[in-house]
Amino acid sequence: MKKIYSVLFLFVITSVFSQKEDSVMVRKIYDYYLTQSKAYSNLEYLTTKIGGRLSGSPQAEQAVGWAVKAMYDAGADTVIWQPCMVPYWVRGKREKCLMSSAKLKIKDKALNCCALGSSVGTNAGGVKAKVVMVNSFEELEKLGEKEIKGKIVFYNVFFNQAHVRPGTAYGESVKYRGRGASHAAKYGAVASMVRSMTSVADDEPHTGNMIYDSTISKTKITSIAISYKAADALVEALKEDKDLTVYIETHCVTNPDVLSYNIIGQINGTERKNEYLIAGGHLDSWDNGQGAHDDGAGVVQTIEMLSMFKKLGIKPKHSIRAVAFMNEENGLAGGTAYGKAAQDKKEKHLAALETDAGGYSPRAFGVDTTFGLYNKVIKWKDLFSPYLIANIEKGGGGADLIGLEKTGVPCIGFEPDTQRYFDIHHTAQDTFDKINKRELNLGAGAIGALFYLLDKYY
Amino acid sequence: MKKIYSVLFLFVITSVFSQKEDSVMVRKIYDYYLTQSKAYSNLEYLTTKIGGRLSGSPQAEQAVGWAVKAMYDAGADTVIWQPCMVPYWVRGKREKCLMSSAKLKIKDKALNCCALGSSVGTNAGGVKAKVVMVNSFEELEKLGEKEIKGKIVFYNVFFNQAHVRPGTAYGESVKYRGRGASHAAKYGAVASMVRSMTSVADDEPHTGNMIYDSTISKTKITSIAISYKAADALVEALKEDKDLTVYIETHCVTNPDVLSYNIIGQINGTERKNEYLIAGGHLDSWDNGQGAHDDGAGVVQTIEMLSMFKKLGIKPKHSIRAVAFMNEENGLAGGTAYGKAAQDKKEKHLAALETDAGGYSPRAFGVDTTFGLYNKVIKWKDLFSPYLIANIEKGGGGADLIGLEKTGVPCIGFEPDTQRYFDIHHTAQDTFDKINKRELNLGAGAIGALFYLLDKYY
Repeated sequence: MKKIYSVLFLFVITSVFSQKEDSVMVRKIYDYYLTQSKAYSNLEYLTTKIGGRLSGSPQAEQAVGWAVKAMYDAGADTVIWQPCMVPYWVRGKREKCLMSSAKLKIKDKALNCCALGSSVGTNAGGVKAKVVMVNSFEELEKLGEKEIKGKIVFYNVFFNQAHVRPGTAYGESVKYRGRGASHAAKYGAVASMVRSMTSVADDEPHTGNMIYDSTISKTKITSIAISYKAADALVEALKEDKDLTVYIETHCVTNPDVLSYNIIGQINGTERKNEYLIAGGHLDSWDNGQGAHDDGAGVVQTIEMLSMFKKLGIKPKHSIRAVAFMNEENGLAGGTAYGKAAQDKKEKHLAALETDAGGYSPRAFGVDTTFGLYNKVIKWKDLFSPYLIANIEKGGGGADLIGLEKTGVPCIGFEPDTQRYFDIHHTAQDTFDKINKRELNLGAGAIGALFYLLDKYY
Repeated sequence: MKKIYSVLFLFVITSVFSQKEDSVMVRKIYDYYLTQSKAYSNLEYLTTKIGGRLSGSPQAEQAVGWAVKAMYDAGADTVIWQPCMVPYWVRGKREKCLMSSAKLKIKDKALNCCALGSSVGTNAGGVKAKVVMVNSFEELEKLGEKEIKGKIVFYNVFFNQAHVRPGTAYGESVKYRGRGASHAAKYGAVASMVRSMTSVADDEPHTGNMIYDSTISKTKITSIAISYKAADALVEALKEDKDLTVYIETHCVTNPDVLSYNIIGQINGTERKNEYLIAGGHLDSWDNGQGAHDDGAGVVQTIEMLSMFKKLGIKPKHSIRAVAFMNEENGLAGGTAYGKAAQDKKEKHLAALETDAGGYSPRAFGVDTTFGLYNKVIKWKDLFSPYLIANIEKGGGGADLIGLEKTGVPCIGFEPDTQRYFDIHHTAQDTFDKINKRELNLGAGAIGALFYLLDKYY
């Protein structure tokens, strides 16, 4: 009995000691991020010198080159160019969306708009037709071909503002952006429009990817988003004149796929070099803004993790990777390629994190419950609570981790405060000036501290 | 025994049922705030139509009138004008701070600056002198009269960025703004300057109140803040030329105190009308910006609480008050007057909350542990966790509650995310466009839900 007590006592003492030790180390890690991090200046370069960088574009290729250098500068032992074929969709000349109504004496009133990613262009001729407004696919189905054929379908779906997390509202409405055109085409529509997916009543159109789903319709019609205010104006006008017309002109072109890369910066593990802990964001962004919050922030946060290990002289047992994924926005080619390569090379991934919800003040981690990852991380809750990470939630991941998740790697999502995210998401307003340096670094710090602990306790 | 079990069973069932009931009601309250609240449009009016509103100014008086109307519009049963005498300090003509160095061939280089609140003006003649830079009062004391007499003291104190909460850094450095001039005057300095109290390296000067402390020195010298970048420029120049001079010209005037008001909007309690639950922010703001985050946000959040009770048809047992305090920024006359009136009239205050840390995304409540208030609120932690209030911390209050705290009323501070607060605090950048509607309403919702629960369970 005495022996058991002694062992127990030793266990408790060791545990208390290591908690204290961890808390000192976590403080040291945050000191680094809050006073020495280069995440902010790295992001300034990526967003203001390179700018928007849609897959396949010259800017995306510049970003690839930049990421390689940034990874080496951060102290990576190895930087890997991981190839993937990506779509090369080009927006082309500025889109037009013009509303006209003889009854209302409106002629060619411009509605702020943008073509959706992957959509086909109308080219110079454009498309002009009456508008059918719907609030759901169910409404569309009820109207049927008789009401829709030859017309433009307008999905007037608002964000449900009652949700505490705007991401929930986005999740509910993004399907109209995604497959709205195919559903409309099924009933003979000539074009498809969506109210921008946004929390805020402004005049910015929000782009984003769409998919021509051949299981729904084989016809590809043009597909645009109009701003919240433009949508309001259209709704008002439709109340007075159901026969008003809208003219849409887009000049998008989908070029053949091109070769691009994920960039992987690695610090080699001292004990188990072939076991990996990875954290990533995506390097590509939409073309209309600077891709600051989406997702330059995630890229520089994870690159900074390499710097932190190096600058603090921490030699990880496992190999630590920062991954700048390519093509999250319109294809997930990078995430898929990473997963496939990991499987082909039989790389053992212990955990994978993605940061792709903006460079805002940290709130939580979402952690997969598989392979004991959640049970491990939840024990560190008190270590994080002084640093604004108030919750460790169940279930994690990110779009770029798709390839790893398929093979059963437990994933983590970094969760910042997202109240402002969908105001600027996929718009010309996603620019560097919306980034707060301390918020960016506190997020980076959370990721850095988590990876220090993951490496120590795996 | 059976009876005890039955009672216990009944207790558990009742408790589970009332938790469920509360959670449904809290959701309903947040639905109101997220979809119907007028806090944002109220704030737009206060900040853009009235603007900066320092105590005693015509704008402050306009704001008083506005607050009365806003309280009635929100459904107050009674609106009370509570008088208080407030200082009437006027900045006057734009301040000048010009650096010159023969050695560096710099002549009258402008350093962005602003006079500190309550400071005396130099008037047209200005003050020109050499500069002594110090990092602390200890350094100042060591230099003594010999080094300081006839010179301008420059407190070059940075925010310690390693703090997770910028408010901690503010707390450390604000004493140089507060009594720096008196300490400098003690050794014969002719003027006093501080590096702006800020997290961000920009060119905005941050004003704020200062105090001529006659226990330190009876001499009143002019006192200004220069921007972070101006401070950097001065530091660099001083490295090369210790004999450079700075010219300061300010035109501030302190007029006689004037009559102003706290505005109190009240919903009368149905059962205990003479017991009060109050939530407030401060109506006055600095003159250089629009006082949006500091503290128009707090004012409209608490006014909205009245609307919420009315619109949802909740008849509180106790009297609920929204208080728009006057003169938080340079005197606390309103907070003091409120406390005194409460004492004189023997008003029983059960709890008092202040929201004065910006209209940002909510994080926590800080709650006094006296009279069981903390023990009450901590039980509701799970009710708040879906709404971004992750913590109920010990210890609360706010500057305007000074009068009530003295009489032992337990206080609560609403704590939003403050990473961006000190970037714009007391500057021309504290404007309406920095407000995010959802963040403002989520903060208002937290306060509204808390007051619903306080009223129910007191």
